[in-house]
Amino acid sequence: MTNYREIQAPLRTIMTPGPVEVDPRVLRAMSTPILGQFDPAFTTMMNETMDMLRQVFQTNNKWAFPIDGTSRSGLEAVLCSVIEPGDRVLVPIFGRFGHLLTEIAERCGADVHLMECPWGQVFDQQAVIEEVRRIQPKVLAIVHGETSTGCMQPLDQIGPACRELGVLTVVDAVATLGGTPVKVDEWQLDAVIGGTQKCLSVPSGMAPITYNEGIEKLLLTRKKVERGVAQEQDRLEVRVPIRSNYFDLSQLQDYWGPRRLNHHTEATSMLYALREGVRIVLEEGLEARFERHRLHERALMAGIRGMGLELFNDVPWKAPMVTCVKIPAAINGESVRQMLLEQFGIEIASSFGPLHGQIWRIGTMGYSCRKENVLFVLSALEAVLIRHQAKIEVGRGMQAALDAYGVERAAN
Amino acid sequence: MTNYREIQAPLRTIMTPGPVEVDPRVLRAMSTPILGQFDPAFTTMMNETMDMLRQVFQTNNKWAFPIDGTSRSGLEAVLCSVIEPGDRVLVPIFGRFGHLLTEIAERCGADVHLMECPWGQVFDQQAVIEEVRRIQPKVLAIVHGETSTGCMQPLDQIGPACRELGVLTVVDAVATLGGTPVKVDEWQLDAVIGGTQKCLSVPSGMAPITYNEGIEKLLLTRKKVERGVAQEQDRLEVRVPIRSNYFDLSQLQDYWGPRRLNHHTEATSMLYALREGVRIVLEEGLEARFERHRLHERALMAGIRGMGLELFNDVPWKAPMVTCVKIPAAINGESVRQMLLEQFGIEIASSFGPLHGQIWRIGTMGYSCRKENVLFVLSALEAVLIRHQAKIEVGRGMQAALDAYGVERAAN
Repeated sequence: MTNYREIQAPLRTIMTPGPVEVDPRVLRAMSTPILGQFDPAFTTMMNETMDMLRQVFQTNNKWAFPIDGTSRSGLEAVLCSVIEPGDRVLVPIFGRFGHLLTEIAERCGADVHLMECPWGQVFDQQAVIEEVRRIQPKVLAIVHGETSTGCMQPLDQIGPACRELGVLTVVDAVATLGGTPVKVDEWQLDAVIGGTQKCLSVPSGMAPITYNEGIEKLLLTRKKVERGVAQEQDRLEVRVPIRSNYFDLSQLQDYWGPRRLNHHTEATSMLYALREGVRIVLEEGLEARFERHRLHERALMAGIRGMGLELFNDVPWKAPMVTCVKIPAAINGESVRQMLLEQFGIEIASSFGPLHGQIWRIGTMGYSCRKENVLFVLSALEAVLIRHQAKIEVGRGMQAALDAYGVERAAN
Repeated sequence: MTNYREIQAPLRTIMTPGPVEVDPRVLRAMSTPILGQFDPAFTTMMNETMDMLRQVFQTNNKWAFPIDGTSRSGLEAVLCSVIEPGDRVLVPIFGRFGHLLTEIAERCGADVHLMECPWGQVFDQQAVIEEVRRIQPKVLAIVHGETSTGCMQPLDQIGPACRELGVLTVVDAVATLGGTPVKVDEWQLDAVIGGTQKCLSVPSGMAPITYNEGIEKLLLTRKKVERGVAQEQDRLEVRVPIRSNYFDLSQLQDYWGPRRLNHHTEATSMLYALREGVRIVLEEGLEARFERHRLHERALMAGIRGMGLELFNDVPWKAPMVTCVKIPAAINGESVRQMLLEQFGIEIASSFGPLHGQIWRIGTMGYSCRKENVLFVLSALEAVLIRHQAKIEVGRGMQAALDAYGVERAAN
């Protein structure tokens, strides 16, 4: 017996940099009755999802599939499958998630070298390339879009330079995939990890990854088949085995590939969600989707500025899906967030580390990235700031946002 | 643009030992719009889920929460958080999943010692206890229910003996939790891992675990806070850090506990599913649920025997939720499975390792464990076996199953 009742979740307007609102079609897909993992109807869906992921990653890589875990499971799967203890890894840090890459690489036993720049900045690509030349790491692990600062690191020169230098690039595109171009092949990136709960608008719980032949070659040197399912030709011992079974990409690709060698039981309902999520992305079209993210970013920024507030990441390297607002002096940022949630059902984000208490972060990602949400968060923020005695330009933010949307003034 | 259409999944009768059919109420719960991970409405649901998991695990442990991954993620989270390289670990193997425990422990750097018995047998508890005395491991890692053989290892003496000897017990109860008693406290087990896609009838993608104060004490010696979120009092360096960030239980308990320290973004929809799944288990009542599993097991066994087929695991240590049927001589087991799937939409399982091609495995787990499913699988199996020229007792299996259900013969 239990006193607990069925789930009664309030309906929120989620304007954080993830997790964001899930497309209702994705929610519906998740209520589909499940299939067995080796049911041909299900393996067909696995293959279709791989095919669509390749398109979203803009790659011809053979391997593009999800890790069954939240976004950081994708980071760890790639790093722990690629890094052998003692391997040199370079991590340029420009926000919280660079620290996460460092943390994971260290736990893999890497000899980690860091570059750091102040939160709010990104690196000059040449400076990173110089450091790669100097350190000569096996792997450069770098974040594409830092949700902690709303900044985006250009990679179009870093990728080709690393390729030339024989350095593997591992890129955290968790926040950017599906919201802005992540050109895996054109930028010559070796392994890229995306996120579901950001611009793909799928619930957290899967991490789509892709990697190329260079990575695959390396994996095969560490490949080891699980004893319980091994056959005669399979190798059971290797020189430096991957330290994780769950994250062993050499085994996972045997499960996602034609051999379909039993590993875990694929997370059926999440796979349904991911399949539907990437299908919706491709139905909208990548370019149209990126343009939509830019449109709502412009309107949100115009509204914030119009209100007389200052932007933290009003820089050429701003990530289009994260807008950081400086908390006005003498205003309690957490009190504002709480009133937004309690009175309007709107969630925006606070911040980490050196920016803690300094900025609010507003996301415009995926399904959350739409006009009514942007207008609602602006109007609610204005009302709540007035309620906190903040000095703002009353009424101007909304008008600026409507202007950005090209809404004509009606004739008298 | 994409040519793929919305998901169109055939509706199957899933009678494998996992994944099994999901309760429609759980499917519906997953289509609930998501909440942010720190939304009070969501953290309340996290706490409620912990509370209900404790009841399902029959424990008063403080810690009972899911790992965001499939079942083996729970095994790896516990083992890699507990095992330091060089630690002695004893694994008694009586089927495929003992090999998996070995595989994971080895990758954690453990000095693994094995006991093996033929597939289809389990260990005499005293023999395990003797071996624990002899090897003096830090950890005994053992499977409770082996879906590969349909056998269940008694643990009621092993647990208390290990406690007395100062050996930590880590138990894989993936297949058994929710279908038969898993008495964490009474059996004095230190860490236990359950599965969602078996007797809980929740989709694969989460792994509920529980562990006690002894394990927690050990975790705290290895605790290390992530740099990106660390505060002054937090330790950044430890002697032997946990080799995984994703599976670091010392960090995960800070996320699930009152500190709510940011780690991953909780897999919202899967948490909804798990909360609803365990709620339904408790609503039915543990004892009633276990009795239901035994009832349908009896009917299925009677039906199989009545048909003139032989059971592989007709033993006192049979797991009630897995019934293994010997494939009759000269019958192609895979052809039978294929006809069941294609003509009836019924899925039963093949087998691994030494049992490959020898047995079919039929699951009666969770929502799949109900009368109409048992009767349907028996009647379909009979028809398909006749279609394969097998010598069976025509019509007798169904009558035996109806007898087992206590269905009276109608008067003329």
